Amino acid sequence: MKAEYINPFLLSTVSAFETMLHCPLTRGTPYIKNGHQPSHEVSGVIGLSGKAQGTVVVGLGREAALSVAEAMLQERQPEINADVTDAVGELTNIIAGRAKSDLEHLNLSVSLPSVITGRNHCIQFPSRVTPICIPFDSPWGPVTVEVGLVETPAVA
Amino acid sequence: MKAEYINPFLLSTVSAFETMLHCPLTRGTPYIKNGHQPSHEVSGVIGLSGKAQGTVVVGLGREAALSVAEAMLQERQPEINADVTDAVGELTNIIAGRAKSDLEHLNLSVSLPSVITGRNHCIQFPSRVTPICIPFDSPWGPVTVEVGLVETPAVA
Repeated sequence: MKAEYINPFLLSTVSAFETMLHCPLTRGTPYIKNGHQPSHEVSGVIGLSGKAQGTVVVGLGREAALSVAEAMLQERQPEINADVTDAVGELTNIIAGRAKSDLEHLNLSVSLPSVITGRNHCIQFPSRVTPICIPFDSPWGPVTVEVGLVETPAVA
Repeated sequence: MKAEYINPFLLSTVSAFETMLHCPLTRGTPYIKNGHQPSHEVSGVIGLSGKAQGTVVVGLGREAALSVAEAMLQERQPEINADVTDAVGELTNIIAGRAKSDLEHLNLSVSLPSVITGRNHCIQFPSRVTPICIPFDSPWGPVTVEVGLVETPAVA
């Protein structure tokens, strides 16, 4: 995966958290994800297609997911319910949507978001893809954004 | 979600299992998925975008996932490893790819597949979407295909 494809996702994540959720993020060093590392408890997943195919995964711990929902809905939910998964799905949609506008030449469109919950779930990308994981620290705990994107072979 | 959108996924699933994997499927009655029902242990997820946005989830138990990989790779894997998740991702890609060609007017393209593993994980669609779940029985155990698809509002 091209390194230049990472920056739009990094910037859109920081922007979504800071502008929309009023939550400052401290960025860690992006790394190549390999192997079966368990994800955080709540993962927002969205697909990208166009001149590239990809997947974006926004990973949040339980507290971060509840806080994202609280910031978006102005109300604290008692548990990980449909309001929380909708909020995480919408956050994932916003992060992917802003990044795609910075990658205009790839003409990307986004799928519906889905939100995975459950301790110790793992999300695997196809092994031909090299996903990059961007770790962030926040007052709500760690946040990760994983991006795997491959250019679609040109149709002759 | 329109009922006519379900049939292409039903047919493509039966075709992929019977033609490619030589595994007969018995179809159950499709139903509307609601609430947090845990998924099977292995879920292939792929996004769709175009004149509609959607997500397809192919759910398999552990034995079915190992058998899908064995049928595709001609070799039994000892556990749910990257070869197995790649096989489930490719199966998900084939099921979505065949269905999209039957839904030509929606001009759909598919994202990269991702594969979720882990007992008791749940996959939530946005609550504004009504996903349909198609259950199948197979000699390898139950298989489910969930589809959520909403038409994209026309841009004026």
